[in-house]
Order: sequence, then structure tokens, then C-alpha cells
Amino acid sequence: MELRSSIYSLLFFFLLSLTNLSNALKNTHKIPQRPRKPCKSMVYYFHDVLYNGKNAKNATSAIVGAPAWANTTIAAGQSHFGDVVVFDDPITLTNDFYSTPVGRAQGFYLYDRKDVFTSWLGFSFVFNSTEHKGSLNFAGADPLMNKTRDISVVGGTGDFFMARGVATLMTDAFEGDVYFRLRTEINLYECW
Amino acid sequence: MELRSSIYSLLFFFLLSLTNLSNALKNTHKIPQRPRKPCKSMVYYFHDVLYNGKNAKNATSAIVGAPAWANTTIAAGQSHFGDVVVFDDPITLTNDFYSTPVGRAQGFYLYDRKDVFTSWLGFSFVFNSTEHKGSLNFAGADPLMNKTRDISVVGGTGDFFMARGVATLMTDAFEGDVYFRLRTEINLYECW
Amino acid sequence: MELRSSIYSLLFFFLLSLTNLSNALKNTHKIPQRPRKPCKSMVYYFHDVLYNGKNAKNATSAIVGAPAWANTTIAAGQSHFGDVVVFDDPITLTNDFYSTPVGRAQGFYLYDRKDVFTSWLGFSFVFNSTEHKGSLNFAGADPLMNKTRDISVVGGTGDFFMARGVATLMTDAFEGDVYFRLRTEINLYECW
Repeated sequence: MELRSSIYSLLFFFLLSLTNLSNALKNTHKIPQRPRKPCKSMVYYFHDVLYNGKNAKNATSAIVGAPAWANTTIAAGQSHFGDVVVFDDPITLTNDFYSTPVGRAQGFYLYDRKDVFTSWLGFSFVFNSTEHKGSLNFAGADPLMNKTRDISVVGGTGDFFMARGVATLMTDAFEGDVYFRLRTEINLYECW
Repeated sequence: MELRSSIYSLLFFFLLSLTNLSNALKNTHKIPQRPRKPCKSMVYYFHDVLYNGKNAKNATSAIVGAPAWANTTIAAGQSHFGDVVVFDDPITLTNDFYSTPVGRAQGFYLYDRKDVFTSWLGFSFVFNSTEHKGSLNFAGADPLMNKTRDISVVGGTGDFFMARGVATLMTDAFEGDVYFRLRTEINLYECW
Repeated sequence: MELRSSIYSLLFFFLLSLTNLSNALKNTHKIPQRPRKPCKSMVYYFHDVLYNGKNAKNATSAIVGAPAWANTTIAAGQSHFGDVVVFDDPITLTNDFYSTPVGRAQGFYLYDRKDVFTSWLGFSFVFNSTEHKGSLNFAGADPLMNKTRDISVVGGTGDFFMARGVATLMTDAFEGDVYFRLRTEINLYECW
């Protein structure tokens, strides 16, 4: 009798467990439960020196498109609306412009608002250091008067194969229209 | 004897279940079964008023790049091939240009075909309403003579953290080269 | 006695299995174990004929943005730094320019480095063949002096609904600044 009841309790426990497991599995199938904890976090700085007609040697970027009322030598009025800038900026581990770059931030940004400084970015971090080879690709709006702005990490290659995430930009320093330095906190939530 | 057979049947049932569970797990590992049912659907309209040399006050966009045979004031011949347009367009919930915007569509489009109107878009929806804060980032080809066109939602931030999906564009209205209104049905298939 | 011990061994086995299953499930939840084996592989070629002032009829692309020191008719000095090119290039299955196109590569590239040829690409493959309808959207850095370069497949529509992956570019041929042909090996790792 004791034996029989222990079998039944075992059976009960067993079925209960199966139910729990099945539910867990179903959730996995429906919507993968994804934690908002990054699988990788990194902080970098990149430095943009905009060509202004006088700094050809040092400039890391240049205006290459502008609206009809402006030109490509001097940043346009109306919050630079319409200016398209191509850049190849050094990436550093600290905010020191002269520290050894770990890669290049390459791509473009454009100013897309008349009444306030707002830009849109499409670019890559191309890493070339002992620590990282590969690239991360970014896209997103940068309302640059905000203290922090989030853009998307839309893909990656090499060490960052298939990565996705969010990058938080912060203007760490700027000098008029010629220089700015962006602190970039990269949080990846998909790592392969 | 009866007891023993009930133990064996229990064991049999147990092993069978384990096999099923293992198979389910293997499938989860191999290819996550992802339903094509959106986790979020939204419809918005955005309104583009292109600068044409006379509407500086109302224009929400401007040509900022053009091929050698054209200029940035008037849309180029050959289906505007080569024109690059930067925009900051109001997003509304209805097709009414004068309804309260819930955000701005910001970024660029370019015309990339000589014999038919076709464009390529890189832009963000930047939401700023009581309902939504955050952004969605888009990229894709827009063969705009087709009734509907699909582009990719490549990422998101804030309320749309890490979102992915497909947006279906439809030209809801247009007036020559100066105004168009796009109905945008956004279907997200990855929500976090 | 024998019976009882067989029950206990069954119980032991059962709990052990549950532990294994639970661990497997936890792994699935924490980080989906994603194999680096593509769910789809394809090779295409696309062909770019850059407008140079003399080839208006055959050109599939044109410079539409350039820095202040250059113009949009002739590729700029300093490794074409700052040139923005819009393109609508035929995609073929082989390296034969005259084979029937299966679609168009549409979007833009820009040269973003002064001391070496490096570009940044944002474009789509728009398929229109019996085999494929739909589009794949790409973004990434192209250090084009390297033998192979990886960019991201950031999304897809139609037959390539929600696709993600990596594309490996290889310069298959080029003729000065007027023609180049890129071999594009597309490996998708997310297929829906």
C-alpha cells in the first residue's frame, strides 16, 4: 500500500514537471524571452575635425552635400539643415585625441532640421587593434542637443559577427563648427 | 505483478515524453520557430514638402546632392536620378497635414533610377508624444510607382528598444514635385 | 525489495533527466545558441558604370556629392574622399555583364578616406526574377583594397522577409574609375 502510494505521488510529480517544462518550451517558441542585460558593453570616443577651408591637413571630415542656399565649404545656416558630411574619424579608448586609435569611425552624418541641431548618422566602427578585428554598423537619429541619444547597432562582422544593440551617444566636447568628440557607449544585446 | 507492470508502463511513458521534449528542444536550438504574426502594428502618415526655391518657409526637405547635369534647386530630369534629399517631416496619426504631429520622420532619400521613379530611404521615426518616446530606424528600396513597397525596420530605441520588422509604404497623396504623403504601416516582428 | 529499489532508481533517473532538461531550457532562455551555419547562401555579381561626363547612356551611377575642392563630374583626388555616388546596378548570376539581370542593386556609396580607397555602402538588392521576389538591405564599411570585405545584411522583405546576415564583397574586376564588378557572397543566418 505504501509502495503503491509512492508510485502515484511519483507519477503526480512527474506529470506536474512535464507541464511546467511544456509551458517553458511554449514560451520559448512564442516569444523568446530576451533579457535586457547586454551581452557586451564597450565605451569608445571618436573625434571629428570638420574641413572649413583652412584645415585640409587635419580635417577628418568634409561637407559633401548642401542645400541650394548654402555651399560645401562653410556649414549652412538654419542649424546646418541639409549639410551632408562624410567622415573618417579616429576611435580612441579615452577622450584624449592623441591616444592610439583602436579603429576608425567611417560613414556620414547629415543635419536634418532647420530650427534645432539634429542629425542622422549612418556609419561603421572599423576596429583594427590587438583586441578587436571586425566592424559594427550603426544607424539612427541624433538629436544632438540632448545630453544622451540612442542609435541602433544594426549589424556586425568579424569579432562582432551578427551583433545587434543600442549605442548611446554623448557630446563629450566641441569647438564651434570645427571639432566635436562623441562618447559612444555600445551595448550589444545580440551576440553570436 | 500488477504493480510491476504499472511501473513499467510509467517508465515507458516517461521515456516517450523525454524523447518528445528533446526533439522540441532540438528544434528550438536549430531554427527558432518564429511566427509571422507581428508583435506590434501601427499606421502613421508623414508629409514631405520639398524646397523648390520659392517655399523656404514651409519646406520640410531640400535637395542637397545632385548629379553633374542637374542642380539642387529643381528636381533633376531622368526621374530625378541622383537627387539626394534631406528631410524632417511631421508624422501624423491621420492623413490630415494639420493634425498634431506625434513625431518627426528624419533622414534622407535619394532617387536612384533613370527610367522610372525609384528611391532609397534611410531615416528614423523619432516619436515624441504621450503614447511613445523613442525611435524606429528604417532602410530600404522604395520603387515608388508600385502601390505598396516594403522596407526594413532595422532597429529601435526607447519604447521600441531593439525592434525589428517591416514597414509597408503607400503613396497616399502627392502634388507634383513639391508635396507627397506616405502612409506607413509598421509591423514589428521582434519586440523586446 | 527489488521492486522498491527499481522505483528509486527510476526516480533518480527521472530527476537527473529533469535537471538536464532544465539546464538546456535555461541556456535557450539566456542566450539562444545560434549556429554559425548559414540558413541560406547565395552568390551574385553587380556591375557599376560610373558617369564621367562622356558615358551618359551607359552609366549606372553618378557622383552626386563632393567636397568643396572637387566636383561631381570627375572622381575627386585624395582617394575620392568625400565623393557620394548614387547607383542602380544590374545584378547577375555570373560575372558576365551581358547575362540577364536577376535584379538591381540600388542605393549609394561614398568614399570616406583620404589616404586609401575606402567606402561606405547603403543599398538594397531588389530581386525581380522567377526565382526571387523581394529585397535585401545592406549597410557597412568597404575597405576596398582588401581582398574580401564583410558588410551587414540588416533586413529583408518578400522572399527574404526579416532576413539578417553577412555579405562578403570581392572586387572581381575594375577599369579605372569607370567600371567595377563586385562579387557578393550573401550568407543569411536569420531566416524566417
